[in-house]
Amino acid sequence: MANPIDFYFDFSSPYGYLASTAIDALAARHGRVVRWRPFLIGALYKQLGYMPLEQPGKRAYFLQDVPRSARAMGVALTVPASFPEALIAPARALYWIADQDPAKAAAFGRAAFRAYWAEGHKLADPAVVAEIAAEHGFAKEAVLAALADQAVKDRLKAETDAAIAAGIFGSPFIVIDGELFWGSDRLDQIEKWLATGGW
Amino acid sequence: MANPIDFYFDFSSPYGYLASTAIDALAARHGRVVRWRPFLIGALYKQLGYMPLEQPGKRAYFLQDVPRSARAMGVALTVPASFPEALIAPARALYWIADQDPAKAAAFGRAAFRAYWAEGHKLADPAVVAEIAAEHGFAKEAVLAALADQAVKDRLKAETDAAIAAGIFGSPFIVIDGELFWGSDRLDQIEKWLATGGW
Repeated sequence: MANPIDFYFDFSSPYGYLASTAIDALAARHGRVVRWRPFLIGALYKQLGYMPLEQPGKRAYFLQDVPRSARAMGVALTVPASFPEALIAPARALYWIADQDPAKAAAFGRAAFRAYWAEGHKLADPAVVAEIAAEHGFAKEAVLAALADQAVKDRLKAETDAAIAAGIFGSPFIVIDGELFWGSDRLDQIEKWLATGGW
Repeated sequence: MANPIDFYFDFSSPYGYLASTAIDALAARHGRVVRWRPFLIGALYKQLGYMPLEQPGKRAYFLQDVPRSARAMGVALTVPASFPEALIAPARALYWIADQDPAKAAAFGRAAFRAYWAEGHKLADPAVVAEIAAEHGFAKEAVLAALADQAVKDRLKAETDAAIAAGIFGSPFIVIDGELFWGSDRLDQIEKWLATGGW
């Protein structure tokens, strides 16, 4: 069995969303599964002493590039008025779901990304996250309890530390057998890498 | 006559080099010419208060991604031991050449990029730059005099300011009729944009 592919992302990342729409099918074409690994990009930037979006020019560019890249991929996307904002609840929920039923983590992740980036839902709200999880078979009350559980909170902190230790400094990163790829614009290289074994 | 495409870059930028190997032919396929517009990325970052490569993780990633992206494009590239370093002389020379004979600016630019990124030449050295310019029909003495000319120095400063005013914050940027594209990894979108008129 080939190693899983690690998909590191923050739900608040538009390029993470774009990658999320393609990564599972792409991996499956090459006999791989994807391990969804959300982290908190705010905490990561803080630890790295780095604030890339503080550049006004960079933000203006992203607001041009993100919708253009989405349209090029045929992906529905509307930048929420509240962007950027911390999206902690869906990241906690994903790890809790993965521990209950690993097969459902990716489907929940795709649905949560879509809820925020395409459907205008308030993904920072635990009630919204519980609603999405309920559509994948989890009791809302259990999800809400998990989101407030210290062990679940600590898990996400540990995963953010693990991402930093793996050399991650943005979102998304896709890691194949130790090879790092940064950005949804590396999907073509990733497909080629999986098809050829690297170059 | 369609507008020229603006190609903003610093010669010290590996992604600028990758784009330089493709941009003229790509533009020509769609009836466009490329206006080569080098700027000084160190001066730009200083004015923007921004030092992206100060992140050790980012640098380590670039040293993995740059050669991998070059191999994916079939482009010869060896990261020089002296990277990153300021490459001022070739940028000044390019504007001087463009003023003498606009048709030769792109050919000089491609040769200068290749000299540094593929052939191991010391492109920071005015003598090396004069040598490359000589291969394109310019007298070495005239090139060396131009490199020391205050008007040529001021021209490059003004072009760096113009790049900042145009919203540029990295290298390369390719601008088509006011639409900004950042990075050699946007060449596919650029080709599609020129073919379709945008989306």
